[in-house]
Amino acid sequence: MSGSILIVGSVAFDSVKTPFGEEDDIFGGTATYSSVSASFFSPVRLVAVVGDDFGEKEMDVFRKHKVDTEGLTRMPGKTFRWKGEYGYDLNEARTLDTQLNVFEKFDPVIPEQYRSSEYVFLGNIDPDLQLSVLQQIKRPRIVACDSMNYWIKGKPEAVKRTFSHVDIVVINEAETRMLANESNLVRAANKILAMGPKTLIVKRGEYGVLMFNGTSVFAAPAFPLEDVFDPTGAGDSFAGGFMGALAQEGTVNERAFRRGIIYGSVMASFNVEQFGLKRLTGLTRSDIDSRFYQFKALTHFEEL
Amino acid sequence: MSGSILIVGSVAFDSVKTPFGEEDDIFGGTATYSSVSASFFSPVRLVAVVGDDFGEKEMDVFRKHKVDTEGLTRMPGKTFRWKGEYGYDLNEARTLDTQLNVFEKFDPVIPEQYRSSEYVFLGNIDPDLQLSVLQQIKRPRIVACDSMNYWIKGKPEAVKRTFSHVDIVVINEAETRMLANESNLVRAANKILAMGPKTLIVKRGEYGVLMFNGTSVFAAPAFPLEDVFDPTGAGDSFAGGFMGALAQEGTVNERAFRRGIIYGSVMASFNVEQFGLKRLTGLTRSDIDSRFYQFKALTHFEEL
Repeated sequence: MSGSILIVGSVAFDSVKTPFGEEDDIFGGTATYSSVSASFFSPVRLVAVVGDDFGEKEMDVFRKHKVDTEGLTRMPGKTFRWKGEYGYDLNEARTLDTQLNVFEKFDPVIPEQYRSSEYVFLGNIDPDLQLSVLQQIKRPRIVACDSMNYWIKGKPEAVKRTFSHVDIVVINEAETRMLANESNLVRAANKILAMGPKTLIVKRGEYGVLMFNGTSVFAAPAFPLEDVFDPTGAGDSFAGGFMGALAQEGTVNERAFRRGIIYGSVMASFNVEQFGLKRLTGLTRSDIDSRFYQFKALTHFEEL
Repeated sequence: MSGSILIVGSVAFDSVKTPFGEEDDIFGGTATYSSVSASFFSPVRLVAVVGDDFGEKEMDVFRKHKVDTEGLTRMPGKTFRWKGEYGYDLNEARTLDTQLNVFEKFDPVIPEQYRSSEYVFLGNIDPDLQLSVLQQIKRPRIVACDSMNYWIKGKPEAVKRTFSHVDIVVINEAETRMLANESNLVRAANKILAMGPKTLIVKRGEYGVLMFNGTSVFAAPAFPLEDVFDPTGAGDSFAGGFMGALAQEGTVNERAFRRGIIYGSVMASFNVEQFGLKRLTGLTRSDIDSRFYQFKALTHFEEL
């Protein structure tokens, strides 16, 4: 049976400029992308904070994807806003403006009925808040956790403390090297595993992901796409798809993890094909499974 | 039965500095790395030019690997010399000095007994010379061709002309984008396939390779290594292993190409573990096959 996933993170309005277009105030945020992505596989419970500019149009997206919003807190003020720009290589966003707004006072309280969630994804928020979420959860089966350079620079000890309490760390390549203070990625990954997590998933943008667990490494490419419009939310779509597939599978072993990595990569590849949530919200499960099998054709060399 | 491979390119003495050490005047060059690498799979015939500083020590390397040096011309003067430096990311060499020496007058003449070679690898030399080699060959089964930014900038039309006469183009990611004048890699690849070659192999350094043939894409990661000492020759070790495995296989189909890509990646991964040719020349076929199967464990997710 498919387990429920608790997702904690930011809900935001993003203004995004890429070489292919520009859109203002589009519905986004870590928790939004990961929830919508995970919802194709398993029931999702959301913990996040929004302001009074968050309306029915946005709620409808969560409703459509059956995301449980019992844990969505509404506070007076504006929702978190981020403005960024991508160059032609689309690999890294340049942040033009960040307005934390209500997100600044985010202190996640996990509703009673969420506390027995078996699968937990801690989106990129203050590592101390991530730890406080964990302290409210009963006996999760799998906890995955994201972070970012801002916290790794500003609160490295808190990041390490939180990582020591989770099963899976999901960060990008530069963050892996920064946290480990080591330029070789394999050595850096081993240093992070030594901090406590059993698994490290390193996101490498258009180059895919590497998963390290101390005894084996799994490499998945990104899906080669002719049209990449907006990379915003790719990492969170990946994490949502990964956790969703894992929760749906219900078993925790190397095969389930690898299939989860591929489902995550499938969701990330769809996400970047259009601005914001447009592509994800229009998907069917058969679109997803069809691209999953395309990944096999893309990577396998012994059984074609 | 295993077909012979004709390899045309440079033989050089390299001075290389990496964060892990420095060595001067080490035996290298495009044709050297690709010949030694290919020799583990199939007989190799070498066409290159050297100066009078090229001695028995270097000839012994070719002898050990049964490389046919009938096509190795000795000219008065010095052998091609290159000096370069790598930073911590090891992705791109900074050229400090290039002395073409006898290589400047290289005009490859293919010995009569080489002209029926079934497999041909045209290493990175002047595209007009690559074409002149092709005009001397009878009916090759597979011709693969490398190039570089220097020729793509300086002689784009000659590069395109040569590419229109080969089966497989093997270039790096930046060169693919530059030649196609297109930032999206999939579109760039399709533009290069439209120039004539049936297959394009895009080398992406520590991110592995992508193979495009117009109907499918194959992605292979680089082997994750804790110790990368010297990336010099990785691309040529890749090409040599790829062509060698293809010639040994003897069949020309998608499966043979994919296995060739993996064998090429295996050889590149060994090559970077030590300075110069040290690692390659010490390998056994069983080292190679063992890493080939590690690649399967690294990439497959359906059959573990």
